[in-house]
Amino acid sequence: MAEVITPRAQDYPQWYLDVVKQAGLADNSDVRGCMVIKPNGYAIWEKMQRGLDRLFKETGHVNAYFPLFIPLSYLAREEEMAEGFAKECAVVTHYRLKAEKGGRLEVDPEARLEEPLVVRPTSETIIWHTYKKWIQSYRDLPLLINQWANVVRWEMRTRLFLRTAEFLWQEGHTAHATQKEAEEEAHRMVRVYQKFAEEYMAMPVLVGPKTEGQKFPGAVYTLCIEAMMQDGKALQAGTSHFLGQNFAKAFDVTFTNEQNQQEYAWATSWGVSTRLIGGLIMTHSDDQGLVVPPRLAPIHVVICPLGRNEEERRPCREAAERLARALRDRPRDEFYGYEPLAVHIDTMYDKQIGYRAAEYEVRGVPVRVEIGPKDIEKGACVLARRDRPGKEGKQMGVPLEGAADQIDHLLRDIQKSLYERAKQYRDARTVTARSLDEFRDLFPLRSGDSEELPWNALKFVYAHWDGTRETEEWVQKEFKATIRCLPFDGPQEPGRCIFTGKPSARPVVFARAY
Amino acid sequence: MAEVITPRAQDYPQWYLDVVKQAGLADNSDVRGCMVIKPNGYAIWEKMQRGLDRLFKETGHVNAYFPLFIPLSYLAREEEMAEGFAKECAVVTHYRLKAEKGGRLEVDPEARLEEPLVVRPTSETIIWHTYKKWIQSYRDLPLLINQWANVVRWEMRTRLFLRTAEFLWQEGHTAHATQKEAEEEAHRMVRVYQKFAEEYMAMPVLVGPKTEGQKFPGAVYTLCIEAMMQDGKALQAGTSHFLGQNFAKAFDVTFTNEQNQQEYAWATSWGVSTRLIGGLIMTHSDDQGLVVPPRLAPIHVVICPLGRNEEERRPCREAAERLARALRDRPRDEFYGYEPLAVHIDTMYDKQIGYRAAEYEVRGVPVRVEIGPKDIEKGACVLARRDRPGKEGKQMGVPLEGAADQIDHLLRDIQKSLYERAKQYRDARTVTARSLDEFRDLFPLRSGDSEELPWNALKFVYAHWDGTRETEEWVQKEFKATIRCLPFDGPQEPGRCIFTGKPSARPVVFARAY
Repeated sequence: MAEVITPRAQDYPQWYLDVVKQAGLADNSDVRGCMVIKPNGYAIWEKMQRGLDRLFKETGHVNAYFPLFIPLSYLAREEEMAEGFAKECAVVTHYRLKAEKGGRLEVDPEARLEEPLVVRPTSETIIWHTYKKWIQSYRDLPLLINQWANVVRWEMRTRLFLRTAEFLWQEGHTAHATQKEAEEEAHRMVRVYQKFAEEYMAMPVLVGPKTEGQKFPGAVYTLCIEAMMQDGKALQAGTSHFLGQNFAKAFDVTFTNEQNQQEYAWATSWGVSTRLIGGLIMTHSDDQGLVVPPRLAPIHVVICPLGRNEEERRPCREAAERLARALRDRPRDEFYGYEPLAVHIDTMYDKQIGYRAAEYEVRGVPVRVEIGPKDIEKGACVLARRDRPGKEGKQMGVPLEGAADQIDHLLRDIQKSLYERAKQYRDARTVTARSLDEFRDLFPLRSGDSEELPWNALKFVYAHWDGTRETEEWVQKEFKATIRCLPFDGPQEPGRCIFTGKPSARPVVFARAY
Repeated sequence: MAEVITPRAQDYPQWYLDVVKQAGLADNSDVRGCMVIKPNGYAIWEKMQRGLDRLFKETGHVNAYFPLFIPLSYLAREEEMAEGFAKECAVVTHYRLKAEKGGRLEVDPEARLEEPLVVRPTSETIIWHTYKKWIQSYRDLPLLINQWANVVRWEMRTRLFLRTAEFLWQEGHTAHATQKEAEEEAHRMVRVYQKFAEEYMAMPVLVGPKTEGQKFPGAVYTLCIEAMMQDGKALQAGTSHFLGQNFAKAFDVTFTNEQNQQEYAWATSWGVSTRLIGGLIMTHSDDQGLVVPPRLAPIHVVICPLGRNEEERRPCREAAERLARALRDRPRDEFYGYEPLAVHIDTMYDKQIGYRAAEYEVRGVPVRVEIGPKDIEKGACVLARRDRPGKEGKQMGVPLEGAADQIDHLLRDIQKSLYERAKQYRDARTVTARSLDEFRDLFPLRSGDSEELPWNALKFVYAHWDGTRETEEWVQKEFKATIRCLPFDGPQEPGRCIFTGKPSARPVVFARAY
């Protein structure tokens, strides 16, 4: 601690790393591209899992678990998927080591697998291979299954949470009797992700389909949620794919329909990952460290009793314990995931209160309570909200009686105002480009500029596009900006492509992206 | 369904497989030794996770996540561990595939890793490599960390849940400033496992240390919980290891103690796995299928409204819905893991009630409610408890008013009586062998016998043993029986080894084991 966090305006990528490290969220490991998720980071992931899992179950899904290893031949069966993932697969080729002299271990060349096994980069192939056994009749459908798992994609450039070789995620894989049902499911799940992003993460998102060029390998189309980070870049935060009959055909999964005919099953898949933690950080956190919305906070409230000596401290500590009990004993409700409020009593009496406050600020605890000898005299305490550091977020002289109620209200208010602040931030940085010149001004290239861009200069840019892959790729090469999605809730009127002048069905959203 | 379950007395291993399959718990996959955990099986695992996780957190532990891959050189650092696991490791040697003509995928020989990576068989090495960075001072200790993860051990003979190449587990890894603290931790955690086994799984266990010959590779000693399966065999259901300073020395993890001296940290590790589901099945289930204790049941109550036509069915269905609501709306409490009761309303009206009942019996739902037209006339219903199939477990004419209370009581009673039944079963099959002849009679070898043994003839056998590895190995070879543990709560008086006549400090427990 007491290490300084690089200010965002000075070096945004370094600020991100500083927050990840100093808030105790994750560490790089010595295993290439793999991270260690530290307790404070994993606790956020657990809260995310609980929230998502509840939403999945409310929409009729159940969990299951499929093998980590995928025989190489399965991956080859669906052509687009094979192409999409072959270049970044970890491959198991042997099943035994042997000791060399000096205790060194070596791969045992005699223990070579007949067929190499791929560590799953995503599980469509192994799951549809299994579904073939489970699906015979329309009565077996729909299959609404989700898996919580680790996956591996051998990425060349990695970044904690945002892009790592191994990451944790959930992947839903559903099978349906009709195209209509499957499409409804794909849409339902992207809306579940939106709900989670907005109501739990307090992170506003755009929702809509990806372009052909940006869809998932093997999908007919991909729906996504896209969030704006504080630097104006986009983060793809979740995807839901309508897979058509592609995987049913690749793995020969047919069923007898109500008319007693054989038909291929219809599929979706959808996933979010530990990447969300990166999104959470870059949506809310500040130059003091991590800011976590209360619904995902590992600790909701820290109480710091003060005092210069034991005599002064005792009544403060006793008041702290009473308040903690009152908070923990509140009835469980949906807002807190039906768990008790998580309250921590800080006892670093030998440190200055400024130091103690900073410790919990950097770790993102939403509410801090201070109880000093003078507060005790007045039967009061001080409340400080993490989302408004400094004087603005401090309430002095809050009566201890009723403080538990007030803290509960404050937590709910923080959740709401974090969302509103993030939404205003994004909306203020969402513009329309009506010409190539306007577009060029919005996506200048640092390398070619004499002036450095401010750290948060980038924007979400609505523009008309002719719908072709060529134009999309040209823009990406020229401006390093990609089409993030065709938002369901964005403007829908036709126009002319600002790059080619050809007709455009509707504006789409361009941005630089993580 | 409607497939017959092989009776236990006819073929116990086949009975086990039949229950696993027909209760929808797991399937073999085509990936050697890996299983697919199906929704009903995974739901039990989720309940186990919740229960264990709560017990871990109550004892001060937090969760984190470490990489799936372990560089080969790490595994080599602790000699016993290297020896213990080298022969069953899945090894990643390449990080890319390439497409051959015809779409076939091949391992890309140019993408060979400089250092092969082992898929974790257990995480001591990667975690202690990380702890080196986290531990500098006694103030950083204790570190009380748990991980939920998948691990891979390339077992040659596999069996669903009991022994699979990939399995799910939790592994606790703690670091302490003193030997005493670490040993206390190892003992605390084996008691947590005992509590979970007995209070959640309703599975009585013996608790005590393993012998030197049976301890974990790298441990100073291993504590374990051992359960008796219905066939009289033992199942090692959980282990807690005191690791001394072995891993601290292998990974050079030292800290400055309060006297300002450098010292190696003290370690424990402890784990339970999806193997517990195998233990659960073989503790309680019967020839009708799965029996699950209510605290781990995915569905607590199934309600079957009856009736020959819609007119008869409507009031039954309405009563079912009212009862389901009353059950779901009960206050959340510890017994149900602070979740609402899970109630399912069955609507297979076109099937006979016998068929419908069997469906839920085979899947292990603890309580079944039937509401027929005649019951409705009397404002009553029928309750059937799964742990006592047939007439014995049926209560007729239970008033619908107050049925929710009664069902809640019944569920708690089932939990208790499953434990008592299992304990009586085990105690009745626990004996003492006072001579080699007695021992020989208790562990006859089928191959050499003219008569087949009854399916449940095996026992837990207390016997005096001279404490040597040689005798232990001789007994194992001669009788296929191993020393399961030296139970803390078993007899402690000294005597003479029944195999060699040498002095024995105390009797130990022998059994055949899974």
